[in-house]
Amino acid sequence: MGRWQPETTERLVVAAVDLFTEQGYDATTVAQIAERAGVTKSTFFRHFADKRELLVAGQETLSRLLAEGIAEAPDDASPLDAVAAGLERASSAMGPTNRELGPRLRAAVAASTELQERDALKSVGLAAAMTGALIARGVPDPTAHVAAELGVLAFKRGYAQWSEGDRDDPRGLAHHAVAALRELREATASLG
Amino acid sequence: MGRWQPETTERLVVAAVDLFTEQGYDATTVAQIAERAGVTKSTFFRHFADKRELLVAGQETLSRLLAEGIAEAPDDASPLDAVAAGLERASSAMGPTNRELGPRLRAAVAASTELQERDALKSVGLAAAMTGALIARGVPDPTAHVAAELGVLAFKRGYAQWSEGDRDDPRGLAHHAVAALRELREATASLG
Repeated sequence: MGRWQPETTERLVVAAVDLFTEQGYDATTVAQIAERAGVTKSTFFRHFADKRELLVAGQETLSRLLAEGIAEAPDDASPLDAVAAGLERASSAMGPTNRELGPRLRAAVAASTELQERDALKSVGLAAAMTGALIARGVPDPTAHVAAELGVLAFKRGYAQWSEGDRDDPRGLAHHAVAALRELREATASLG
Repeated sequence: MGRWQPETTERLVVAAVDLFTEQGYDATTVAQIAERAGVTKSTFFRHFADKRELLVAGQETLSRLLAEGIAEAPDDASPLDAVAAGLERASSAMGPTNRELGPRLRAAVAASTELQERDALKSVGLAAAMTGALIARGVPDPTAHVAAELGVLAFKRGYAQWSEGDRDDPRGLAHHAVAALRELREATASLG
């Protein structure tokens, strides 16, 4: 470990994803994660309730940023423009480590029903945060729900493209998420 | 218990929802559910892996019916017309007991993170079943995903309206789900 110490939370997440990749989620213990991250078990438990919660580290931050971006969009912004502002704000919380972890995180989720459940609930939480922020702007109920669902899909698709695409592509998550939102918006024209 | 014996699965679900309502999800044991339903614990475990799985009884059936309805829609049906056909097919599996249980089931889910996780994963499963069936019809990827998400939202909203609305309203779940899908479709016009 060099002089630069990443935040403990991030170090724990990286250690956990490494261990999930090497030996599977079920076989990985909190003690192993803490050891790999160079912290004690009690430090682990100050950051996370259990190993499953590592998967959704940052969910509250993302929810808050999505809602803030939507709330602070210009008054005349359309519902999807407000969602785009939320995606841009939330993307600012996702750095190089998130990009690097993406593919292995998705592999760990795909291999574990427990993680799939937690991941699905995270999506529900992000959608609820966006729906609430849109309704607070005066967007009517069904439109707010649809816009929020498209926002969640766009965030996931943008994150996949960002973290699995060309590493030399300097465009950040915000670019990919907003582009995915535009693509989904265009797809609604052919729903029938 | 009269002469008519509802299916064991349904009886277990009713007993479980009654107990969840009376004493909460966490305090309810498999032994209590089996006893209330008048079956042995080993009968319970022939039907469900654990008490949480009761919540999503019928998920596989619903996924299959949604996919079948989409697959068998006319060749010239639009993506959303195919989703509507799936919703109609799946609604046929939902009878008076499902209608009656709806509000208490939703209350049980709202009170338990464990149930929320399982419920969220159920939605992911239903969306995946519809997305797969739409892609098999030749619907391009982003449109298939959007149509499937609208289908899941419509099924949930239709189920809520059907199970919480006027009991003398003879219109079935299919009517409410398809009406909800139409409403969501109309909402896409004001996304911006």
